[in-house]
Amino acid sequence: MAEEPAPISFARGAPSLDIIDVEGLKAAADRAFTNDPAGSFAYGTSVGYKPLRAWIAERHGVAEEQVLVTNGSMQADAFLFDTLVQPGDTVVVERPSYDRTLLSLKGRDADLQAVPLAEDGVDVEAMAALLAGGTKVSLAHLIPNFQNPAGYSLSGQKRRALVALAREYEFTIFEDDPYVELRFSGERQPTMLSLSTTGEVVYASSFSKTVCPGIRVGYLVGPAEVIATIAKLATGTYISPNMVAQSIVNEFVRGGSFDTSIATVKTALAERAERLCAGLREHIPDAQFVEPEGGYFLWVTLPENVDGDALFAAAAERGVQIVKGSDFLLDDAKNAIRLAYSGVTPAQIDEGVRRLAEAYRSL
Amino acid sequence: MAEEPAPISFARGAPSLDIIDVEGLKAAADRAFTNDPAGSFAYGTSVGYKPLRAWIAERHGVAEEQVLVTNGSMQADAFLFDTLVQPGDTVVVERPSYDRTLLSLKGRDADLQAVPLAEDGVDVEAMAALLAGGTKVSLAHLIPNFQNPAGYSLSGQKRRALVALAREYEFTIFEDDPYVELRFSGERQPTMLSLSTTGEVVYASSFSKTVCPGIRVGYLVGPAEVIATIAKLATGTYISPNMVAQSIVNEFVRGGSFDTSIATVKTALAERAERLCAGLREHIPDAQFVEPEGGYFLWVTLPENVDGDALFAAAAERGVQIVKGSDFLLDDAKNAIRLAYSGVTPAQIDEGVRRLAEAYRSL
Repeated sequence: MAEEPAPISFARGAPSLDIIDVEGLKAAADRAFTNDPAGSFAYGTSVGYKPLRAWIAERHGVAEEQVLVTNGSMQADAFLFDTLVQPGDTVVVERPSYDRTLLSLKGRDADLQAVPLAEDGVDVEAMAALLAGGTKVSLAHLIPNFQNPAGYSLSGQKRRALVALAREYEFTIFEDDPYVELRFSGERQPTMLSLSTTGEVVYASSFSKTVCPGIRVGYLVGPAEVIATIAKLATGTYISPNMVAQSIVNEFVRGGSFDTSIATVKTALAERAERLCAGLREHIPDAQFVEPEGGYFLWVTLPENVDGDALFAAAAERGVQIVKGSDFLLDDAKNAIRLAYSGVTPAQIDEGVRRLAEAYRSL
Repeated sequence: MAEEPAPISFARGAPSLDIIDVEGLKAAADRAFTNDPAGSFAYGTSVGYKPLRAWIAERHGVAEEQVLVTNGSMQADAFLFDTLVQPGDTVVVERPSYDRTLLSLKGRDADLQAVPLAEDGVDVEAMAALLAGGTKVSLAHLIPNFQNPAGYSLSGQKRRALVALAREYEFTIFEDDPYVELRFSGERQPTMLSLSTTGEVVYASSFSKTVCPGIRVGYLVGPAEVIATIAKLATGTYISPNMVAQSIVNEFVRGGSFDTSIATVKTALAERAERLCAGLREHIPDAQFVEPEGGYFLWVTLPENVDGDALFAAAAERGVQIVKGSDFLLDDAKNAIRLAYSGVTPAQIDEGVRRLAEAYRSL
């Protein structure tokens, strides 16, 4: 029997261990446990570890009462949806969008309206038309930077237009921004949170991509009254989030490891993205994609007659994991796949693309 | 103006910092991050950090598939209630019982049936009568050891009787057991989980009382199919619980710090409980209570005409925090209070009881 090829995963949006600052984390834990054992080891409150909350508030230029630190940003999403989304509410999502968010909203019986995503972000004209047509939108979920799964980012102009729409039609923008720090080219745009002056935006981010995912620290920034409501819900759910983890993150971000860690991650991601794009151009000339300026993901569109589900299976037979584009869509389109380059080394990328091309030719 | 007296809290069921093994936690973190950086820092799966899950399974003599490790045991409760309790379902609770559990069940619109708690645990005859009378019970929430708030424990005989009732009437026992390791006198009884052979029991516990609360690691043990359902819910809620925290706990419990830590905690709790009981006997002879054999709490019953809410206020004026008994009840009885001795030193206990007696006399 032939030997199984070593598995290569373009599936999981997670960093490889070599770009996690293990020594920095060890040192941060030691400082956290030495400098603040009471704060690290006792029950905290549901708003999170106070010094980290203060750091986040300062970074976003908001009051501390506007910040709630959670066990990862998915948990933050869940709290926000529990608070703002009732069954039957209309929620705008991007097309494509993050599969777990779509599942979470579907599980709450929201009426999902998928608005197409362009290279410079969600189609604002389509959204304006939807709103002008009388659809009462409660929430718009937008991933503004290096979107999952598309890798696209929202332009500054569109950010302003969206905040204006939210104000006019009185809906909340959920600015879901875990990848913001991972820009390796192009120009950083202001957050919609910072562009909004009248509380239309609730912002979420995470330390999963800048410190590490296993630490499960995410956060929300929003109007103080929304945060207070969610803090009550959080108390009832888990009393307090993980103080040990948040106290480690606090020392990590304040101790200088943060910038070094982000620089390491960005350098690696830039190299991996470039390598993946070059490989695809060479081996799968049919593949269409936008070269990413940051983040983890490449959205690859194939000719219309190509079945992404079949490509998924053919790739898996060759030990290559990808995610079907259809997982990120609410309709039946099948000719796209998502490739994550965050967890693979350049050598794995080369070999993975070679095998993926073989799978593609086999269809 | 008179100086405010230093605050003394008999309110919070949490350990004081002096009985948390800070050095053991530092060493455990260092080992965890050195021995398994990939497992500690990457996304995990929703069942928890696998080596810790295996340790828990072995300790309870169950298959790993029966264990799910969560962000604290309140989160475990929430998942279990989301899975097993529908609006209108009848849930048996003890009278008195943990206020947060009562709130969580009320929030799910459960029909709560409070069954009196005796010194040897819940009144099994009253429960049998309820069931025989035709009430269809979905779930019975029981805290078998050093109950919160009463401090009482369930006898071995009653444990067997309850498992038999659950089998006969086909309801689930939720055995909520965070204090089990904190016995400083009397004899340990088998868990209902271990007495059940046909899946009537879901068991929850936590490392909050044996390692530290800020680490937020709790767990569920139950039938594999219930655990699998909850694992799916957990994936959708937060992808994975805190791997950093669970990997630290894993090293802590496997590295020998666990037994030492529990011994330290038990010695301190025994001394504090004894001191509190002695102080009450001397200064508030009206106070009735059962000397605890473990855990954090003393339930103090006062003469029927005493208003626990007024005592709460009078104590607070003297810098002493207590919890009103009425918080743990679904009815209007007011002549009880809960005193937690876990977070106060012997000297604070002496002074706290002196002030509490003064407050009592002032009523």
